[in-house]
Amino acid sequence: MANQDRMSKRVDYGKRNSRRRYYTYRKTSKKSGVVPQIEKEKVRISFIGGMNEIGKNMTVYEYKDDMFIVDCGLAFPSTELLGVDLVIPDFTFVENNFEKVKGIIITHGHEDHIGGLAYLLKKVNIPVYATKLTIGLIKGKLEEHDLLGSVKLVEIKPGDNITLGHFNIELIHVNHSIPDAVGLAVRCPAGVIIQTGDFKIDTTPVDGDMIDLTRFSEFGKKGVLALLSDSTNAERPGTTMSESSVGESFELLFRKAKKKRIIVATFASNIHRVQQIIDAAYTRGRKVAVVGRSLENLVSVGSELGYLNIPEGIMVPVETIKNYSDDKILIITTGSQGEAMSALTKMANNEHRMVRLTPNDYVIISATPIPGNEKMVGNVVNALMKQGVEVIYENMYDVHVSGHACQQDLKLMIGIVKPKFFIPVHGEQKHLVSHAQLALSMNIPKENIFIGDIGNHIEISDDGITKLDDVPSGEVYVDGYGVGDVGNVVLNDRRVLSRDGIFVVAATIDASTGYIVGGPDVVSRGFVFVKENEELMQNARDIALDVIENNYHAKYHDWNAVKMKLKDELSKYLFEQTKRRPMILPIFMEV
Amino acid sequence: MANQDRMSKRVDYGKRNSRRRYYTYRKTSKKSGVVPQIEKEKVRISFIGGMNEIGKNMTVYEYKDDMFIVDCGLAFPSTELLGVDLVIPDFTFVENNFEKVKGIIITHGHEDHIGGLAYLLKKVNIPVYATKLTIGLIKGKLEEHDLLGSVKLVEIKPGDNITLGHFNIELIHVNHSIPDAVGLAVRCPAGVIIQTGDFKIDTTPVDGDMIDLTRFSEFGKKGVLALLSDSTNAERPGTTMSESSVGESFELLFRKAKKKRIIVATFASNIHRVQQIIDAAYTRGRKVAVVGRSLENLVSVGSELGYLNIPEGIMVPVETIKNYSDDKILIITTGSQGEAMSALTKMANNEHRMVRLTPNDYVIISATPIPGNEKMVGNVVNALMKQGVEVIYENMYDVHVSGHACQQDLKLMIGIVKPKFFIPVHGEQKHLVSHAQLALSMNIPKENIFIGDIGNHIEISDDGITKLDDVPSGEVYVDGYGVGDVGNVVLNDRRVLSRDGIFVVAATIDASTGYIVGGPDVVSRGFVFVKENEELMQNARDIALDVIENNYHAKYHDWNAVKMKLKDELSKYLFEQTKRRPMILPIFMEV
Repeated sequence: MANQDRMSKRVDYGKRNSRRRYYTYRKTSKKSGVVPQIEKEKVRISFIGGMNEIGKNMTVYEYKDDMFIVDCGLAFPSTELLGVDLVIPDFTFVENNFEKVKGIIITHGHEDHIGGLAYLLKKVNIPVYATKLTIGLIKGKLEEHDLLGSVKLVEIKPGDNITLGHFNIELIHVNHSIPDAVGLAVRCPAGVIIQTGDFKIDTTPVDGDMIDLTRFSEFGKKGVLALLSDSTNAERPGTTMSESSVGESFELLFRKAKKKRIIVATFASNIHRVQQIIDAAYTRGRKVAVVGRSLENLVSVGSELGYLNIPEGIMVPVETIKNYSDDKILIITTGSQGEAMSALTKMANNEHRMVRLTPNDYVIISATPIPGNEKMVGNVVNALMKQGVEVIYENMYDVHVSGHACQQDLKLMIGIVKPKFFIPVHGEQKHLVSHAQLALSMNIPKENIFIGDIGNHIEISDDGITKLDDVPSGEVYVDGYGVGDVGNVVLNDRRVLSRDGIFVVAATIDASTGYIVGGPDVVSRGFVFVKENEELMQNARDIALDVIENNYHAKYHDWNAVKMKLKDELSKYLFEQTKRRPMILPIFMEV
Repeated sequence: MANQDRMSKRVDYGKRNSRRRYYTYRKTSKKSGVVPQIEKEKVRISFIGGMNEIGKNMTVYEYKDDMFIVDCGLAFPSTELLGVDLVIPDFTFVENNFEKVKGIIITHGHEDHIGGLAYLLKKVNIPVYATKLTIGLIKGKLEEHDLLGSVKLVEIKPGDNITLGHFNIELIHVNHSIPDAVGLAVRCPAGVIIQTGDFKIDTTPVDGDMIDLTRFSEFGKKGVLALLSDSTNAERPGTTMSESSVGESFELLFRKAKKKRIIVATFASNIHRVQQIIDAAYTRGRKVAVVGRSLENLVSVGSELGYLNIPEGIMVPVETIKNYSDDKILIITTGSQGEAMSALTKMANNEHRMVRLTPNDYVIISATPIPGNEKMVGNVVNALMKQGVEVIYENMYDVHVSGHACQQDLKLMIGIVKPKFFIPVHGEQKHLVSHAQLALSMNIPKENIFIGDIGNHIEISDDGITKLDDVPSGEVYVDGYGVGDVGNVVLNDRRVLSRDGIFVVAATIDASTGYIVGGPDVVSRGFVFVKENEELMQNARDIALDVIENNYHAKYHDWNAVKMKLKDELSKYLFEQTKRRPMILPIFMEV
């Protein structure tokens, strides 16, 4: 009883729905007349993705027989994942528990939170809850995958409560580099869990709508069991600058650009950035053209749904830019990460169909390179400068701010939410460790901080966090139409092929006599320039001939042994000659 | 005559040798009684590498029939250069002018200045001039390439003058991240050219020997025709910190490490860094073990030649570290760039033969990631932290300083050398442009600044810089024993293979009838997981069978047409099924 009472004080069950549930519990324990269980209520969380890694965020909450999911993102493949287009989470755990899953809530419309959704929905059809803009972006994804009519999409807004089985979830408005982002207050009989989602604290956001710190504080005051908070910027000291500060930089730089044509490259999803560029262009009497498919899509979705405020007549089709003098036009484009196929990269390499650069261009790269992209961005800057273009990039003039909270803001969040348990999420080990250190410095006891890994399955009660057996998790590779069919075997082959190419030996053998009747032919690709290595190829052919003739016994037909021998001998010879190890592929045909 | 007089004032011909030459000119013009030519003396420079790129630095000076080379470095391949081990300059220009080349001067012992030397010397045997440590490091290279006895190595020191034909070159001591680095004052009848080499201004260097700004100033006072200066840090404001400041950070951190074992990762060539680590370890009574082949080599060369001062008995073999308690040992290791095969990466992944990490380890990464390596370094930090190790990395505690001059130092160099012409070198376009802007800000006229490209061949006289026709230049790929044999054909094949693998179709055909008597067999590697795609493989085989039977005419033997048709049909089918485009390789054998 004492326990129940304490819970009723600590835990806010929110609005009507959950209140009813609360009384139900109470009644049950009264009716039965039994002394209430001493055992605390427990909630379980599985980290399917986004824990101890960047990207493919996906979390599953579980209370008794109810489950719901938060986010379903993708990750972009690292360079070792040759030929892989994108990486999604392993959905096995969700598939195995399909009956229990009541829905999925998406915190905002970035790829690392929505990019895996279509793949998930193909396997399990569950209702999707998200805010207006996020729904708009999800619809685009579902259309690409032919899923649009068959999925239930529920539009929600900050302050709304969603009941999913025993769970009641309230959405809390947060600031981020895309509008309409929310954090979650997850209520269940075990307590309240706050999951921030990606967030920053912006006191002067472009849309005027500051993160709802009041609501986070209210939950904190009533008692929060656990906080799952965004660790992306946990290594960065200080506070994150307001998005508005970029607008001020634009105004300054647009003046400095004088009579030059202005080109601004930015992330295609950053609506507020685009708004600020348009606003500053408007002030200086420039028309605006948008170049790049994803950006065109954003501008159309954003203005349709009311997230972009576009002055009458300012937008012009890129085909018409030649009708304006350089000082009357501004181009917004994609490619701020130096992506090979992006509009900015094409412009820099003088390969863009519509936009030709001249020394009268003034390019602003309104982004900082994501770790791993530094070199590509540098290449684009170099290429632009070779064309005589003036380029504003990297840390010049604050033309970019992050969408994630830095250390002081993260500490503020911990300070107002006052969680009993702290779980840093959305980050690699170094981010999680840094974030944990912030929590430690705010006197959250070490044993109340959980640094996890993907696949971890934990149970939280007022008594502590218990680690259960891991659930299935990992990286599923999408390559073309194939989802999950490219694994280590294929990737290892691609790695060998990428380094030293392939060396094929084909021979036709008379099965009755064991004599070679055709070939052996030797063919290589990606190994050496054959025209300059005829002797090498000829010698390799002679070795193949010897090995096959000396080792093939018509009686045994033991081709595998001959193939192994052939691989060994050729590999040895080719390595001695070239210090390279091509893949050796023998093909024998019997006639 | 007026011209000659002006030159005799402006140009310092240095010591005895060049003075004699100066009088020779004067006598000639007197003897002939002819009015001296109005035309100014000219010196030519070819940028074989290191201009508009990072790495493989190589410059050729040319006056009449005399040439000499400065540096011969390598570059590390970008990730697109699949399988390429290293990149060296194109030596064609030097080979074509072999008779004129009097020698090569190496400014310091880093790979981007000496790494191509062995490959050059295999083609043209010319004398090599370098300081003591640099010669020591070059010897190691020549040994690897079996060149040691056959090359003339001349040890020189700062202040020395080298006469190479009409050229007289004085060496000027500079600071850098390796000891014994020099800049050059190149004297010839056209004037003096200063080439800084890689440099920084360190007022408190570890060896106490500050860059010889006095000598640079003296040349500046007498008149310098052109300055070729290091642009590596031209984007960075301020001044470069002294190497000694890192020593102070080590002392602080080694105290903070308390009873933990300390592991410091750094660049294998940074002798002063190693010295400071050893000194700080000595102060705290720790023994030092060195792990990593290149670092072991440096410690042995460095101490042999007197560049490392190692306290008696402090060094212990890595095999014995287990005999010391954690607080009595310090390990210096390679891998500060997260290189896959390095000692630190192996330790982080628990794969190192000798060193096992525990949470009682304290790792300091004394380096900042070279652009492009950020992700790899991050991976190592994450792996270390997963083992519970405390890691000091990136900008924490100033555990690394650059070896290159930042903007204020670069301006100081321009200010004391006061060149007529300014040529930023050693940098990508963005670095060259930034450096040029610094020169502009110091009132060097725009037309006196030359931003070049590799292959550029220029002629400098008092009248100006003239661009001549480019000389051969470019990237020569070293892959195993092959130098230059891997070109675009092989690399393109590797690219295709790396993305979608290969699909081989082999068939044996009766040449007289055109019937298929063996196969077609289909084999793929790196394309799909064959065991799960038997139907796809079977269908592809059927298509191959159809195409060959319907298109092969015994009479014409037009295999190429059949192969083309086969490639088209299979490519289409496989793309439709998988959205992948493997390389398709048909092999037909006639019997």
